[in-house]
Amino acid sequence: MLSKKPKIVVIGAGFAGLRAVQKLARSNADILLIDRHNYHTFVPLLYQVATGFISPEIIAYPLRRALHHISNARFLLAEVENIDFENKVIHTDRLDVTYDYLVLATGSQTKYLGVEGAPQYSLPLRTLEDAVRLRDRLLRNIERAAYESDLDRKQQLLTIVIVGGGPTGVELAGASIELITETLAKDYPKLDLSQLRLFLIHSGDRLLAGYPKALGNYTCRQLRRRGVKVHLNSRVSSVLPGAVELNDGITIETAAVVWTAGVEANLPNDESQLATAKKAKICVRSTLQLLEYPEVYAVGDVAFVKQDNKPLVGVAPEALQQGTAIARNLKRQLRGLAPQPFDYFNKGTAAIIARNAGVAYLFGKIPVKGFMGWLLWLVIHLYYLPGASNRLTLLISWIRDYLVRERRVRQIFAYQNSYAKDFLDSRQFQSRL
Amino acid sequence: MLSKKPKIVVIGAGFAGLRAVQKLARSNADILLIDRHNYHTFVPLLYQVATGFISPEIIAYPLRRALHHISNARFLLAEVENIDFENKVIHTDRLDVTYDYLVLATGSQTKYLGVEGAPQYSLPLRTLEDAVRLRDRLLRNIERAAYESDLDRKQQLLTIVIVGGGPTGVELAGASIELITETLAKDYPKLDLSQLRLFLIHSGDRLLAGYPKALGNYTCRQLRRRGVKVHLNSRVSSVLPGAVELNDGITIETAAVVWTAGVEANLPNDESQLATAKKAKICVRSTLQLLEYPEVYAVGDVAFVKQDNKPLVGVAPEALQQGTAIARNLKRQLRGLAPQPFDYFNKGTAAIIARNAGVAYLFGKIPVKGFMGWLLWLVIHLYYLPGASNRLTLLISWIRDYLVRERRVRQIFAYQNSYAKDFLDSRQFQSRL
Repeated sequence: MLSKKPKIVVIGAGFAGLRAVQKLARSNADILLIDRHNYHTFVPLLYQVATGFISPEIIAYPLRRALHHISNARFLLAEVENIDFENKVIHTDRLDVTYDYLVLATGSQTKYLGVEGAPQYSLPLRTLEDAVRLRDRLLRNIERAAYESDLDRKQQLLTIVIVGGGPTGVELAGASIELITETLAKDYPKLDLSQLRLFLIHSGDRLLAGYPKALGNYTCRQLRRRGVKVHLNSRVSSVLPGAVELNDGITIETAAVVWTAGVEANLPNDESQLATAKKAKICVRSTLQLLEYPEVYAVGDVAFVKQDNKPLVGVAPEALQQGTAIARNLKRQLRGLAPQPFDYFNKGTAAIIARNAGVAYLFGKIPVKGFMGWLLWLVIHLYYLPGASNRLTLLISWIRDYLVRERRVRQIFAYQNSYAKDFLDSRQFQSRL
Repeated sequence: MLSKKPKIVVIGAGFAGLRAVQKLARSNADILLIDRHNYHTFVPLLYQVATGFISPEIIAYPLRRALHHISNARFLLAEVENIDFENKVIHTDRLDVTYDYLVLATGSQTKYLGVEGAPQYSLPLRTLEDAVRLRDRLLRNIERAAYESDLDRKQQLLTIVIVGGGPTGVELAGASIELITETLAKDYPKLDLSQLRLFLIHSGDRLLAGYPKALGNYTCRQLRRRGVKVHLNSRVSSVLPGAVELNDGITIETAAVVWTAGVEANLPNDESQLATAKKAKICVRSTLQLLEYPEVYAVGDVAFVKQDNKPLVGVAPEALQQGTAIARNLKRQLRGLAPQPFDYFNKGTAAIIARNAGVAYLFGKIPVKGFMGWLLWLVIHLYYLPGASNRLTLLISWIRDYLVRERRVRQIFAYQNSYAKDFLDSRQFQSRL
């Protein structure tokens, strides 16, 4: 007795994909959600994991938990290898899956913009594993610097370079400098942390390109006041083991390069060669259906969506609203009705700089900065984090951190990770040549 | 201007080593604490990390934090490679360290008792990494079983074998069966978990050999009532990829073997060949000084210490009291006084079985079981956990878990770990031969 219900497969459990599944509860279809992780990552707080504010678990919501009350949905933990759109089959590393309708919500990946050495020698910050690896690197470098007698090597270990002045780069820079000047200064009373240098390298003439100019300038001033060396109009020409070369000829010796500068769609492999636009994003109709296949939708960072003739920028609210929209369109299709165009309602965006300093740009009109911007950021992210007990834990962590000025999660869990060790040793070798 | 104070080096930041450092605060000596991790592991709660109760961070206290208020102590993150007792030099993977007085607190390691395949194909539970790896394995096996069509393979994935019926084996068995029957049953509504089998293999005729017979029998009944298949008087003769062979000829097909059966001292390498006793433990005088070197102490699991002509069993209170005792003895030595013999005051031990069921044996005299034993265990461990905010987080986690009956930490963070994947594939291959 096989089910006669139509089958909707959603690939990717980010903001867009998970929202779509939730909105398809009680629809007359069987839903299968596929992801390579068994949890949803709350990406906006990755930088807080990387800088020791919070445990990774707080921003990783178990997907099977999310589906407890959605009786028509199942979950498959698998890596998608290939999609055959003609025959409506998804090949995964575990089993083959057929579909009647498909939602592509596979998100984005880091793009290294052709910079030599960047894929090998810099650290991205897109996944929870990235965040934990970055935290380990930052902490381990300081730990190594504490007993380093070679002063050049010590300076290298105490130098962090963040590439990219978008929200991720800005938030990471502000949180890193706080981690060092507040927590680590207490942990290493005998280490002269005035030696520590944190560079933020940005190709544009102001930070946070998506915000009004005044907010970008405010952000730059705030970071500089806290000790971040912001380099505007500057590009990385290559990343070496142990150093970064800028296009103006400057070389910075460093043992930690973080790459937040480029992003492109994380496209599934297929033989049909879907039409793509900028950043390899899939071209979609105004209804978010694929040009080639009306039974396939693309949402979130993998889709090229325009609003008022400008491409959307790739933030969480866009993905969430798209997830809601295509769930509605799928339900219309199931009832034989035509899908409707997607229309994004821009409530605004916010970025945090450091304690008591943030920026927000509401409804694409109202700029907010300083303490109010910071508070807005906190409230928004606390509100959107999935899971009531996660919200409580997050709130307690934040309050504790605000009062005690101490990052709680500063254990190095990967000290014996041989990759990290070899990598550092190769840097050391190179840096001495 | 070199310091003229004597230098005390403590190797190992477990219960004994960390306590010794804390008690040496304000002594007239420079202290150096060496550990391979930058945190102290609260070992009694490892099983709760392995079964998803709590985040690893809660039981990993940052060592530099622990030293904030001990102005005469420093910390070195390093692996000790060799100790030259004659010249009083410690060779580490980072630098060489000299000492005037030395405390060996290097703890214990898993002993596989010569069982073939056990080191390669079973999982230990002694470190935080072990606990996280075990959690990942348990969760991943169930996730794989959910889509497994081969019934034999499915049964194998749904079979857990725990070797050793001491406190670790008992606590892990009880917590694992709760994880499965409470949390995972809700996560996998379509998986028939009655197929799941959890074996506890114990060589003795009763569980918890260190407790009175009645408590061991009570523990066995409680575990059996909850569905654990307890095999007494049974030994593992070999561990294969995908199976365990017992000495009575039974073979159990399984994809998760946990080894808690044997333990031996984790001795540092040295050329002088220290005198050792049972389980490779270092022979010490009644003052806990080494027989060969009066300036060297051995404490905790690495030392062979007798009380009333019986060897100590290796629990946390013994290590803590030894740490206090040798700190006092070192201070006496610094003042030119003779060290005093160590005398263990046995306040008792406790082990937890499952919700509302535990056992405790107070002052070596008073047996406690059931709800009171469980409550005693909780109070003791909450009290001894380092860090006020960790205690608060732990308490919230426990209360939440008690009310909601749901393990919060069930994210699989190592799905793409190739070792684990290959390992499972090799099992699969073997199990089909």
